[in-house]
Amino acid sequence: MASLSSTSNDSSSSPSSSLHSAGDVQKIKFCQWCGGTTKHDIPDGEERLRAICTTCGKIAYQNPKMVVGCLIEHDNKVLLCKRKIEPSYGLWTLPAGYLEIGESAMEGAIRETREEANADVEVISPFAQLDIPLIGQTYIIFLAKLKKPHFSPGSESSECKLFSLDEIPFSSLSFSSMVVTLNLYVEDMKAGRNPKFHYGTINKRPGTSPSDIDAFTLEDHMQS
Amino acid sequence: MASLSSTSNDSSSSPSSSLHSAGDVQKIKFCQWCGGTTKHDIPDGEERLRAICTTCGKIAYQNPKMVVGCLIEHDNKVLLCKRKIEPSYGLWTLPAGYLEIGESAMEGAIRETREEANADVEVISPFAQLDIPLIGQTYIIFLAKLKKPHFSPGSESSECKLFSLDEIPFSSLSFSSMVVTLNLYVEDMKAGRNPKFHYGTINKRPGTSPSDIDAFTLEDHMQS
Repeated sequence: MASLSSTSNDSSSSPSSSLHSAGDVQKIKFCQWCGGTTKHDIPDGEERLRAICTTCGKIAYQNPKMVVGCLIEHDNKVLLCKRKIEPSYGLWTLPAGYLEIGESAMEGAIRETREEANADVEVISPFAQLDIPLIGQTYIIFLAKLKKPHFSPGSESSECKLFSLDEIPFSSLSFSSMVVTLNLYVEDMKAGRNPKFHYGTINKRPGTSPSDIDAFTLEDHMQS
Repeated sequence: MASLSSTSNDSSSSPSSSLHSAGDVQKIKFCQWCGGTTKHDIPDGEERLRAICTTCGKIAYQNPKMVVGCLIEHDNKVLLCKRKIEPSYGLWTLPAGYLEIGESAMEGAIRETREEANADVEVISPFAQLDIPLIGQTYIIFLAKLKKPHFSPGSESSECKLFSLDEIPFSSLSFSSMVVTLNLYVEDMKAGRNPKFHYGTINKRPGTSPSDIDAFTLEDHMQS
């Protein structure tokens, strides 16, 4: 739930719509604890602009959010969901969504898979961490397998389907993080490698449109 | 900066002091965007209690925070910093702190190392992700090496020192995440393994004190 869906909350909104709002400290005008007005200043001993309450002095820190999901392998195919919600309505994605307080990344990835694909999965191994600094998001993707060969669209999906490696609809994927994850997976599999853990940073190429999911570079790519 | 230090902000405070405040939605009484009062309710289509503005309708989502740091190898030793700030004043830690919006986890880990140990490092590989659901934190630790053999205490450290594997002060470490990280590293090295990527969840053992850093279990441990 609240998984990559558009919400009325700028600071935790979708990957595309948050391009200009992630970390926009100037939009924080009130203290959420005491209701006092904020000033925008660099606190003593820090280096970044923060919203500081002029009444109680508390600082409203903003930090990147984790998006957790599963790359589900079944019969040499992978499970994708077609999005029934904005952003990226009608495009294909791995089941994934925002990590909640109180759950581990693995638990969150399993929960999102249950919600979006009605699938009960067992995590096999961590597969990728992909940071997107521009929008303050980090994608954490696990390899997983179906406990039972059952899945169906959850409330945020119109369709769930298994794709062989050669059938993956790369031109109809929802987010750059999904393009990178599936590319790395296909490369690992075609090279006959056991999938290893990948780390990388996704940066938009300067001057490209936020809505062009192919206009990015993968940097600092490392494997463990 | 703002790296694991105590602050006046409950929602991003220290690992120890945030035990009872991480994700405490009831403390959010005002909308930080419009100043309206909040109600605490489960929004349509969601499953969790959120603070919702009664004036503008925006939801104040709370999400886990990432702590990023470096495990620096040099001459078969590792670099630790003695904390000059609370919490865990006087105890040893890896250089680490909260990830900021606009930087990748790798960039954040390099920055924290520069701030806490005045050391310029090159990241070698991702080493560990350790989730602590109870306090809404995820530690992301990279293996790194010194670009030049220079380091000295930054403003949050009283001492920085290289320790051989047998000298690591396990009884004087600052956080359970550091105990786990260094244990996994020592195990890998003593087994003659190239360090692989570790994923795991740190849970407190029921009934133990929050200040007892040894009173935890490592669960769902996986390597890639």
